[in-house]
Amino acid sequence: MTDVRNATLPVTAEDVREAAARIEGVAHRTPVLRSRTLDELVGAQVFVKCENFQRGGSFKFRGAYNAASRLTAEQRAKGIAAYSSGNHAQAIALAARELGTTAVILMPEDTPRAKIEATAGYGAEIVTYDRYTGDRTAIGQALAAERGLALIPPYEHPHVIAGQGTAALELLEEAGELDALVVPVGGGGLLAGSAIAAKAAVPGIRVLGVEPEAGDDTKRSLELGRRVSIPVPRTIADGQAAETPGELTFSVNRELVDGIALVDDAQILDATRFAFDRMKIVVEPSGATGLAALLAHRIDPLPARIGVVVSGGNIGAERFAALIDG
Amino acid sequence: MTDVRNATLPVTAEDVREAAARIEGVAHRTPVLRSRTLDELVGAQVFVKCENFQRGGSFKFRGAYNAASRLTAEQRAKGIAAYSSGNHAQAIALAARELGTTAVILMPEDTPRAKIEATAGYGAEIVTYDRYTGDRTAIGQALAAERGLALIPPYEHPHVIAGQGTAALELLEEAGELDALVVPVGGGGLLAGSAIAAKAAVPGIRVLGVEPEAGDDTKRSLELGRRVSIPVPRTIADGQAAETPGELTFSVNRELVDGIALVDDAQILDATRFAFDRMKIVVEPSGATGLAALLAHRIDPLPARIGVVVSGGNIGAERFAALIDG
Repeated sequence: MTDVRNATLPVTAEDVREAAARIEGVAHRTPVLRSRTLDELVGAQVFVKCENFQRGGSFKFRGAYNAASRLTAEQRAKGIAAYSSGNHAQAIALAARELGTTAVILMPEDTPRAKIEATAGYGAEIVTYDRYTGDRTAIGQALAAERGLALIPPYEHPHVIAGQGTAALELLEEAGELDALVVPVGGGGLLAGSAIAAKAAVPGIRVLGVEPEAGDDTKRSLELGRRVSIPVPRTIADGQAAETPGELTFSVNRELVDGIALVDDAQILDATRFAFDRMKIVVEPSGATGLAALLAHRIDPLPARIGVVVSGGNIGAERFAALIDG
Repeated sequence: MTDVRNATLPVTAEDVREAAARIEGVAHRTPVLRSRTLDELVGAQVFVKCENFQRGGSFKFRGAYNAASRLTAEQRAKGIAAYSSGNHAQAIALAARELGTTAVILMPEDTPRAKIEATAGYGAEIVTYDRYTGDRTAIGQALAAERGLALIPPYEHPHVIAGQGTAALELLEEAGELDALVVPVGGGGLLAGSAIAAKAAVPGIRVLGVEPEAGDDTKRSLELGRRVSIPVPRTIADGQAAETPGELTFSVNRELVDGIALVDDAQILDATRFAFDRMKIVVEPSGATGLAALLAHRIDPLPARIGVVVSGGNIGAERFAALIDG
């Protein structure tokens, strides 16, 4: 792996620290939970960074607010556009409201209802598209151009990546030195930001991503050394249904990431249920994949002190009940 | 109300501080969560002390461990007995395991399965009885006498009350001065401990209990100035199905408590769902009654800065799913 201190990367640890200062007092500094049951089952000391408690229900608010807060007054007057499978949508809607501007969000038609409602609840305008046939990047860019909006993509943006890295920064501040950091991967923004922040703070730390088996585009891409595309993944981890890694995020992850673990839907559901029953926290399937990799013993070798980001909790009570009833 | 600094009470603020020192490093120092949505809906600043994250899934571990840790070596060699509708059971089972002794727990037959399983999972022996016909105090005392066990009751014990008060102590340390503290009431141990701790720390604070409408024994008793009994309450708040206040807890609450709010089962369910959907935390119905009183606007007058104890999270995913499907 590249030493982050020497690498030429599009986002630096200094950018993450600047983002941390910018979101302070606006984003929550989320708690780090411990569970003895988890430690026993995993066989290591596990520090759980609870981004399910973040504003907007996921880590996405960190990057969204960091990026939105840097828009010019002129851009803010026109408003923000975004496309998202859900959590970035809520994050942008909330960031726009915080900054006194408006947001138009392009969301897949089959986004869980709770996520669409929450986004609309923050005052954003919702436009839907079919994610099995439409290209959201193209539609989003056209929408932004047509209406003169500032487009903030869910991960392909240095300010978004820097913002996402602040969760790892806080986790390391609270837990102290860790041997490994495990984070869910969709487009790779959280992984990239986390890797930049973590490797600067603890040079020897292993940074590992976790993908659903059906959505292993980042794993495949890292193995081949280039970005590959896979068919639209069908997985309960709707927030991780990426077809290909981001160009910017991949350029970071290729340099800094130590590996990707895969978990199947049954393991993700088990982790979601474990979080509910034993940790008393609400985690959406996409947010539980890091926990799932630990509980299913997919991290090998297993270090002694592990940080894991529970990245989101946006699952409505009805959908949770339906998942449990199977 | 009596000034706690002058009152002669069976438990003092010094006892609570001693308990805090005794449980340090064994019990979790649980997080205090904020939610802007909650603040907006309630119309006040609300600080949520999350005892659903406590070991054993509720605040009960504080009192159980404080009491169990004071047993003599001889008593510990023989083991502990307890009776409980669920959360004290898990707390005692866990405290016994921590202290290297054994526990026998008397539980109602209709205790939610997740609570019985969790208690057995901590290594305790379970004995069940019919709570609509049996007298658990008498059965528990007979069981303890027969086997030579040290009986630790769920609230009628100074060390238990002192232990329960430590949650309020931590909440005030973290949130700073509060105008009011709202806590669920079953037998009254959490309320008594909280009132002792809070009124010593912030003399002007209002301490309010919350009961389910069907189980308003403490409210009636405070109004009459003496302990009254009601029929066994039928409510989804199974941890608050007390028929009469404890003698010891009532002697404290009569002096220090400023009022009791009532919430019905629908309001409790709404609060349980709010906690899931908006705060991403798992709260059992009994643990949600404080939140329910705030969300249903049952606290009048409403102060500016309110602490509320979410007292437990012991509800299995299946039972939660069934409640939501209603």
